Amino acid sequence: MAYFDAASSAPLHPVARQALLASLDEGWADPARLYREGRRARMVLDAAREAAAEAVGCRADELVFTSSGTRAVHSGIAGALAGRRRVGRHLIVSAVEHSSVLHSAEVHEAAGGTVTQVPVDRGGAVDPAAYGDALRADTALACLQSANHEVGTEQPVTEAAEVCRAAGVPLLVDAAQSLGWGPVEGDWSLLAASAHKWGGPAGVGLLVVRKGVRFAPQGPVDERESGRAAGFENIPAIVAAAASLRAVRAEAAEEALRLRELTERIRVRVPRAVPDVEVVGDPVRRLPGVVTFSCLYADGEVLLHELDREGFSVSSGSSCTSSTLTPSHVLRAMGVLSEGNVRVSLPPGAAEEDVERFLTVLPGAVAAVREKLGAPVATEVAHEQDVLVVDSLGKRCPIPVIELAKVIGDVPVGGLVRVLADDEAARLDIPAWCEMRGQEYVGEEPADKGTAYLIRRVG
Amino acid sequence: MAYFDAASSAPLHPVARQALLASLDEGWADPARLYREGRRARMVLDAAREAAAEAVGCRADELVFTSSGTRAVHSGIAGALAGRRRVGRHLIVSAVEHSSVLHSAEVHEAAGGTVTQVPVDRGGAVDPAAYGDALRADTALACLQSANHEVGTEQPVTEAAEVCRAAGVPLLVDAAQSLGWGPVEGDWSLLAASAHKWGGPAGVGLLVVRKGVRFAPQGPVDERESGRAAGFENIPAIVAAAASLRAVRAEAAEEALRLRELTERIRVRVPRAVPDVEVVGDPVRRLPGVVTFSCLYADGEVLLHELDREGFSVSSGSSCTSSTLTPSHVLRAMGVLSEGNVRVSLPPGAAEEDVERFLTVLPGAVAAVREKLGAPVATEVAHEQDVLVVDSLGKRCPIPVIELAKVIGDVPVGGLVRVLADDEAARLDIPAWCEMRGQEYVGEEPADKGTAYLIRRVG
Repeated sequence: MAYFDAASSAPLHPVARQALLASLDEGWADPARLYREGRRARMVLDAAREAAAEAVGCRADELVFTSSGTRAVHSGIAGALAGRRRVGRHLIVSAVEHSSVLHSAEVHEAAGGTVTQVPVDRGGAVDPAAYGDALRADTALACLQSANHEVGTEQPVTEAAEVCRAAGVPLLVDAAQSLGWGPVEGDWSLLAASAHKWGGPAGVGLLVVRKGVRFAPQGPVDERESGRAAGFENIPAIVAAAASLRAVRAEAAEEALRLRELTERIRVRVPRAVPDVEVVGDPVRRLPGVVTFSCLYADGEVLLHELDREGFSVSSGSSCTSSTLTPSHVLRAMGVLSEGNVRVSLPPGAAEEDVERFLTVLPGAVAAVREKLGAPVATEVAHEQDVLVVDSLGKRCPIPVIELAKVIGDVPVGGLVRVLADDEAARLDIPAWCEMRGQEYVGEEPADKGTAYLIRRVG
Repeated sequence: MAYFDAASSAPLHPVARQALLASLDEGWADPARLYREGRRARMVLDAAREAAAEAVGCRADELVFTSSGTRAVHSGIAGALAGRRRVGRHLIVSAVEHSSVLHSAEVHEAAGGTVTQVPVDRGGAVDPAAYGDALRADTALACLQSANHEVGTEQPVTEAAEVCRAAGVPLLVDAAQSLGWGPVEGDWSLLAASAHKWGGPAGVGLLVVRKGVRFAPQGPVDERESGRAAGFENIPAIVAAAASLRAVRAEAAEEALRLRELTERIRVRVPRAVPDVEVVGDPVRRLPGVVTFSCLYADGEVLLHELDREGFSVSSGSSCTSSTLTPSHVLRAMGVLSEGNVRVSLPPGAAEEDVERFLTVLPGAVAAVREKLGAPVATEVAHEQDVLVVDSLGKRCPIPVIELAKVIGDVPVGGLVRVLADDEAARLDIPAWCEMRGQEYVGEEPADKGTAYLIRRVG
C-alpha cells in the first residue's frame, strides 16, 4: 500500500505521536486556571506557542492556535476585513485559492462586500503585476496561498506582499501546503496554516496576525487565544503540532531534494509511458512532493478506483471527494485539461520503490479506464451543411471529448465539428483537447439543450 | 494532590486515552476521500457518531462533531436563529447560562435581535412558568442549560421544553455539565456538549439538531459534518470522545451515588467547620460532584492560592480565571454571596480521603485569608447626623464588607451605616451580608465617587 495523498492529510509524524502522548497527562487542565494543573497546562501551551512562532518566523504573541486550518482562514479573513472596515470592503483573492478562502469571499460578497479574483497563468501562478493592478483605494485585504494544493505551484508571495505593502493593504497568506517545508518569505501581514498537512495531528491550525495589523475578531466574544480562537484549547494536540513542525523542518532540506527527484521522475516519465497526458503546474517553482497530470479520455474518479485497487491512494481534481462531482476550480482557472486528473502528493519518507511501482502500474490503469469508456457508444453523427454535429447531450465527460476525437478525422481540414454537450466539464476539456491536439477551438454558443462547442480541424 | 475542578475540565479517562492511541493510525486520513485510508477514516467516524448518538438519545444523522463545546453552542445558536429568522429575532436565555451562550446572545443583540434573560431563584434554577412567560410570537429560539456549571443546580429542562414545544419554539440545551451523567430528558430540539467535561479529549464538542428543526448554518460554506462544523475532522479525538462517553455512562449510576455522598459531606460539614459560610445552589436537584460555597470576609482568589498550596485545585466564581476579576454572573443572578467563593467539582474516582483532608484543611485556609484581610485598615469613620459613614473607596471586596461588619455594632439598633465603595462586587456582597446577618439592606444610591450602600442595624 502506498499513500500518495499527503496534500490532503499527512500521516501522523512519529514526533507528533510522542509529543501527543507525553502531553496527554500535562495538557488536559484549563490553562486559564491558577492552580498547579492549570499553570502546568499554561506553561506547556506557552512553550508550544514559542516553538511554532519560531518556525513561522513571528513573535509568539502574534500567533494563536485555532481548531483547524479552515478555521484559521475563516477567522483571519473575517477579522482582517472587519478591522479595516473603515478603509473599505474590497477583498482580493487568487482564482486558485483553497475553498476555505473562496467560501470566505462568498460570505463577504453576500454581506455586501466586493471581491476581485486575480487569474492565474497556465502554470497556476498569479502575476504579481496583475495582483497589484487589483489593488484599490477601498481594498481591505488581499489573500494569496503560498503554494497551490492541487498542482503544487508556488505563488510569488514575496512580490505580492511588496505591492500590497506599498499600497498599505495587508496580505493574508494561506501557507497550509508549504509551512512544513520552510517559513513563508516576504513581508506578509497574516498567515494561516494547518498542522495535519505537515504531519501534526488534526484539530490544530495556526493564525498569525502581525503586530500593527488592524484585526477585529468576529463572532461571540471568547477570552481564549487572545480572543481570536473560541473554545477550550486542545493542548496535547497543540504540543504535538509544534513539536512535529520543528521535526519536519529539521528534515525538510534533505527530504525536499529527495521528493523533488521522485516527483521529477513522474513528471518526465508519465507522459512517455501514457499517451495523451498533460502534466500540469509549474515545472520549477513547485512544492517538492506534488505532481499533477490529466489523462485525456479518462474519468478521474474511475481512475482513482483503479489505482486504489492497485494499492495507491491518490487524489483527483476532476471529482476528488465523495460528495462533489464538479471539475476543480483550480484546473478550470489554469485552463488545463481536467479530465482523468490525478494528483500525486508524496508524504515525507515516501519510498522510491513505491513511486517506481506507481510508474509501472499507471499505464495499465489508464488504459483499462479508457477501454471501459471507449466502448462503442450510440452517437448520432449527422452532416449538416459543412458542419459535423456530435450529440453528446446527457453524457458525462470525458465522453464528449472521446466522441470528438473519434470524428475529427471525418471532416476535411478546415471543416468544423459541433459538439453538443451539457456536462459543465466539457467547457474546460474541449478547448484543452484542442490545444493538446493542435486543433482550433472556435468557441461555444448556447444550444437548444446544453452548449454547442465548435472545433475546426487544422491538421 | 487533589484535583477538584472537574467542572472546568476532567482528566482524560483511561478509555479515552486507549481509544485515542488506537485510532491515531486509522483516523488521520480525509474521510471524504474514496481510497482505502479515507474509507477507513469514514468508517471509524461513522461508528463514533453512532455511539455518541446512542448516548445522547438521538439519530446519528442529527449529530455532528464540532471542535469544542463553545463552538457547538455558537454554531447551534447562530444556526437556529438564522433558520427561524422569518418567525422573528427574539432569543430567550436564562441568566445563569455559560458565557458561550451569553456571548452568543450579545452578538445577536448587537446585530439587531432582542434577548430576554429569564431570572433564577436563590438556588440558581429558573421557574418553568417564568420561562414560558418569556415566550413571544417572535421568539426564534430558547436556551437553557441542563445544569449550572458554577453551582451544580439542575434546571427544569423537561418542563421548559414542554412550554417551548407548546409555543412551537425550539429549545437548545447546553448539556456540557451533565451529559456524562445521563441523557437529557424532555422534548428538546437542539443540544450542545463538550467532551473534555466528561473525560474525553479537548477538541471535541457535540451539536445535535433534531430532524424538523429549521437550521441554517452560518459562516463560510464547508462540506464537512453536514455543513455544520467547518474544518478537517479530528477523528482520533472524536473516537476517544465517543468511547469515553460510553465508558463514563457505564459507571455513572454508581459513581453518582458515591460523589453525591461526598459532596453532601462538604455541604453539611463546611458550614459547621467554617464560620460565616453560605453554601449555594440547590441542595437536592444538583449535579452529583459539584458543591459551591462562599466565605464571608475572604477573597476568593487568595483562598484558591491558599488551597493550591495545600494541594487542592478548586475554582472560584469570585475571580476564577487569571484574566477576569469580576464576580460571577451566576452568583450575581442568584443574589447570593460571591466573596470567598469556592467551587468543588469532584471528578469521577475522586478519593474519599482527599475530600476528608479538604474538610480538615479548609477552616485553617479560610482563617488565614481572613486574618490577612482583617489586619487593621485605615478606615475613616465619621458620624454624620444619624448615619455612620464608612469610606471603602478604592478597596477591593471583601474589604468593604469587613469594614461594614466592624462598625455595625457602633450604631444603635435602627441606626444607619452608609458604605461608600467602588468595587462592583459590593453591590452583590453587601445585600448578601445583610441577609446572612439579619440586618436590613435599605438600598444604594450614586455617590460623588462610587456608590453608597445603606444598611440599617436591626439586631
